[in-house]
Amino acid sequence: MKRISIIGLGLIGGSIAKALKNADAEINISAFDPFITNENINLYKPYIDKILSSEKESLENSDIIFICTPLETALKQFSELAPLLNENQIITDVAGVKFPFEEIWKSCNSKGKYIGGHPMTGKEKGGFENSDPLLFENAIYILTEETNDISLLKEFEDLIHLLGTNILHIPAKQHDVIAASVSHLPQLISVALVNTASLKTDKYNFLDLAAGGFRDMTRIASSDFSIWESVIAQNRDEILAAIEKFQIELDSMKTNIEKLNLNQLKDRFESSRKTRDEIPKNTKGFLSPLFDVFVYVKDEPGVISKISTALFKRNINIKDIELLKIREGSGGTFRLSFESKDDSEEAKLIIQEIGFEIR
Amino acid sequence: MKRISIIGLGLIGGSIAKALKNADAEINISAFDPFITNENINLYKPYIDKILSSEKESLENSDIIFICTPLETALKQFSELAPLLNENQIITDVAGVKFPFEEIWKSCNSKGKYIGGHPMTGKEKGGFENSDPLLFENAIYILTEETNDISLLKEFEDLIHLLGTNILHIPAKQHDVIAASVSHLPQLISVALVNTASLKTDKYNFLDLAAGGFRDMTRIASSDFSIWESVIAQNRDEILAAIEKFQIELDSMKTNIEKLNLNQLKDRFESSRKTRDEIPKNTKGFLSPLFDVFVYVKDEPGVISKISTALFKRNINIKDIELLKIREGSGGTFRLSFESKDDSEEAKLIIQEIGFEIR
Repeated sequence: MKRISIIGLGLIGGSIAKALKNADAEINISAFDPFITNENINLYKPYIDKILSSEKESLENSDIIFICTPLETALKQFSELAPLLNENQIITDVAGVKFPFEEIWKSCNSKGKYIGGHPMTGKEKGGFENSDPLLFENAIYILTEETNDISLLKEFEDLIHLLGTNILHIPAKQHDVIAASVSHLPQLISVALVNTASLKTDKYNFLDLAAGGFRDMTRIASSDFSIWESVIAQNRDEILAAIEKFQIELDSMKTNIEKLNLNQLKDRFESSRKTRDEIPKNTKGFLSPLFDVFVYVKDEPGVISKISTALFKRNINIKDIELLKIREGSGGTFRLSFESKDDSEEAKLIIQEIGFEIR
Repeated sequence: MKRISIIGLGLIGGSIAKALKNADAEINISAFDPFITNENINLYKPYIDKILSSEKESLENSDIIFICTPLETALKQFSELAPLLNENQIITDVAGVKFPFEEIWKSCNSKGKYIGGHPMTGKEKGGFENSDPLLFENAIYILTEETNDISLLKEFEDLIHLLGTNILHIPAKQHDVIAASVSHLPQLISVALVNTASLKTDKYNFLDLAAGGFRDMTRIASSDFSIWESVIAQNRDEILAAIEKFQIELDSMKTNIEKLNLNQLKDRFESSRKTRDEIPKNTKGFLSPLFDVFVYVKDEPGVISKISTALFKRNINIKDIELLKIREGSGGTFRLSFESKDDSEEAKLIIQEIGFEIR
């Protein structure tokens, strides 16, 4: 019987607890979270076998420790716990930057094992109250393992598969290089683009003319800095390298525009078109800009059209829809994605009004 | 009775003809387009009172000449026709770059009047066959008038209002500065971003992890260079200025990341968030987004043609179609993308009317 400790029962930690408990009730889950109080403990009880009173208690209660706190806290807890593992214990984390963990690991001479993880999923709202056993369904779970123990890794992978994810192995450094390029750089560019375009003259507000595609392109510019602050600090070198590569590319385009080298520009446009058309369409990537609502529907014909009609009547546009899980004769769960948080919140109310269950 | 000539019966010119004729059958419309032949002339006949055999014939047949050809051709035709106007004639155009027309106008000593125009609307597919009297409905029609004749301007505006648009007055130079900032710059950045992120190492294709938000953010990177070539050439100075502003902003963010000046970075994030939330949500801007509809279809031959025919009959243009999911023997889900929310919402109703399930 596996014993798991989860440190931090927010969206990810809570979803891991729920998914594992749903998948296998035999798994023993202990957890530490300072937000658990006497008043709210009943929320946690169905999923958590034992509430721990400190991070360190996890060392006595588990074979695998999941650190699921925000990046800076996670690094601190990782530094404290990693050196104290015994030879049978695995420590893992779920942070979006991976190399700093590996550096700590290499310097701490632990007897245990470290397997870094980055589940590529999320929701707009955090917290245990928004956690969901289906959060990982069909998502990519990146592992940046630092263990050569194949049987141990296999065991860990079996556990991760219980979440419903697809595993992808990428070394920590490589992960951070890719994340800088396809997630952190686009975020910074989006912010810079909005700031650049936000001119107001006496008479004209540029952005009044920047609707539609400009909104789509800069959606992530509305992200909260608090989630980016530690990512930027921890992945600084890779982010700087990605910015520099982008600057070189943009500067060369600028030179070609200056000199009206239209053939060279054409090559860059065609290369980008070809490349972009190769981006996979059906997986969640590093950037997840839509706002998800999970709806449970019984197995009846026409339910989805009932929901979409109700939303349509209220002017709510569904941007993406995905069937996550279906059980013959008993229904399934759909993920409906919306462009804005406001839309997703209103959609939840409407869907509940017409009698469906929000998950 | 107004006499209008339209030079170039593509998407915009054709839509103007249809919209004006629908609004007021008394308006006399003549047109020149080398694509009109004996075989296809019947397509045009309901809307065009007289087919002209050259651009210059428009001078004999109209009070107002609309030049609706692609940018480079439009500039050439404008140079030829503008000097030949009499004092009662107005010439106008619909191009996305405006200052080059004004420069030609100022140097040609015409007796007529010039009112520059830029209707902010469009569709993926061009040509008269895709033109639509509703193309302008609720769109912004920018006028960069170079006339002080208020009563003439009023008359012209009344005509433009027949298209269903909202008029916005912006001087030509200012228009091009704004377009560079909110349309041309984002286009170039999108291309540069895709080219920067398109790394492949031996083992990893970066873009495999760049789904979702990255695709959204770089949708316009798939644009065809042919539509950008003359825009870049004609608006070069404003585009270069916009790139430089962006470079300064990005460089300052880079310095703040280098020095870990997180408070300054936070300011930039917050400024962009605040600004972006002010972008109008329901108007068409310089860049048009797509609106998606998901349709579940059983596994039968010909369903998609049934749907597309029904939409076509109602003048709804499908901009993109993608098969998302298919189960052997039980059907699949298609994503249909539309240029406007109105189109997508009308499409949903039509698709349901003919018995398919919207997901």
